Amino acid sequence: MKNRRGAHPKAIVLLSGGLDSATALYWAKQKGFTCLCLAFDYGQRHKREIAAARAIARHAGCALEVVKIALPWKGSALLDKRIAVPKTMSVGKGGVSKIPATYVPARNIIFLSFALSYAEAVSASAIFIGAHVQDYSGYPDCRPEFYRAFSGVIRRGTKAGVEQKPIVVKTPLINKSKAGIIELGARLGVPFKLTWSCYRGGKTPCGRCDSCYFRAQGFRKAGLKDPLTKA
Amino acid sequence: MKNRRGAHPKAIVLLSGGLDSATALYWAKQKGFTCLCLAFDYGQRHKREIAAARAIARHAGCALEVVKIALPWKGSALLDKRIAVPKTMSVGKGGVSKIPATYVPARNIIFLSFALSYAEAVSASAIFIGAHVQDYSGYPDCRPEFYRAFSGVIRRGTKAGVEQKPIVVKTPLINKSKAGIIELGARLGVPFKLTWSCYRGGKTPCGRCDSCYFRAQGFRKAGLKDPLTKA
Repeated sequence: MKNRRGAHPKAIVLLSGGLDSATALYWAKQKGFTCLCLAFDYGQRHKREIAAARAIARHAGCALEVVKIALPWKGSALLDKRIAVPKTMSVGKGGVSKIPATYVPARNIIFLSFALSYAEAVSASAIFIGAHVQDYSGYPDCRPEFYRAFSGVIRRGTKAGVEQKPIVVKTPLINKSKAGIIELGARLGVPFKLTWSCYRGGKTPCGRCDSCYFRAQGFRKAGLKDPLTKA
Repeated sequence: MKNRRGAHPKAIVLLSGGLDSATALYWAKQKGFTCLCLAFDYGQRHKREIAAARAIARHAGCALEVVKIALPWKGSALLDKRIAVPKTMSVGKGGVSKIPATYVPARNIIFLSFALSYAEAVSASAIFIGAHVQDYSGYPDCRPEFYRAFSGVIRRGTKAGVEQKPIVVKTPLINKSKAGIIELGARLGVPFKLTWSCYRGGKTPCGRCDSCYFRAQGFRKAGLKDPLTKA
């Protein structure tokens, strides 16, 4: 894909180091975007994810910016060592989920705002985010209606929006299951061995947090082997 | 005003150090909110505004948090010394304005996102921002339609919103002229001598940038004397 001037359009890709955002990156690349990756150091316990984001961006041949955010407030198990990371998944029987302790207040809104600022500064036409419904564990800022609402903010609150070329938020994985994402990622050549999903920052995935649970289930359903696990 | 539990509700007030946000703070205080102020150190040229925000919060007897943001990208005269701050105002005859070089990509969206995170973390019910139409110099993120769109994001993308108690963005000055804000501020006891409006970071206001121009015009129309000017 090329734009009207014959150049590849630019996209900002929010890269967390997990396999979802890595798959979103490879999807954007395949669609012909020149991708500029964006990661955040926000005091999360699982800093290993930033190292993973660096390795994935390098593998993809894309630039990566890391924005350091020091939130003076806490309120999430991912930021505050006094709050425990839940050991079991927060999605109950029947798929009904409550908002878990790992919810970081307004995190994706903050991340998207920075991506939007970056996109405006470099004249990118799109922002890619690997959010999806199945894995959202009750996070309200992973739902399609949130992204639609955020698109309204872009149209009305940015220079690009006012000038009739609003930056588009792309959520290519939004309706996919974890297994579906893993199948897609495998087709796109995503280096799963470089990705990191565990909420805890150990040397190996804990295998017990929500994120490990969904990852293991996804690989199992996709009939593929997770290169991060021994078995 | 007290909430159902008999306590004063909490509000996050975005405090820039200018007279608009100071007036919004005193308005919120008068309405009975316990105000927690929030300022940003985002590499702006006019760092004096952070010192002003501290002085205003102290005068109002409110806590202030300063969030440091290091944007790896520039794209605004307020961040990049290679881009000149316009010497004359960007609003032309007939009030038609273009987006000026001092526009910081997605700045208010980033600020609101942090305020929203803070509000969720401390269970505040409102966010106050001193944005208003007349002074907006063409900034798209100072228009009422932007704030309406952002409220949609809050309803759909936050825990508080999903749980049916969305945090409300209050823009008490949105339809006021600069003169009207100054008149209101004078009635509320806003310490104008502590406020700082100039885009340049000198010892005294430059008197020539957009912000100085609107401030001087506002005081003149309100028939009041600006304590920061000699004449």
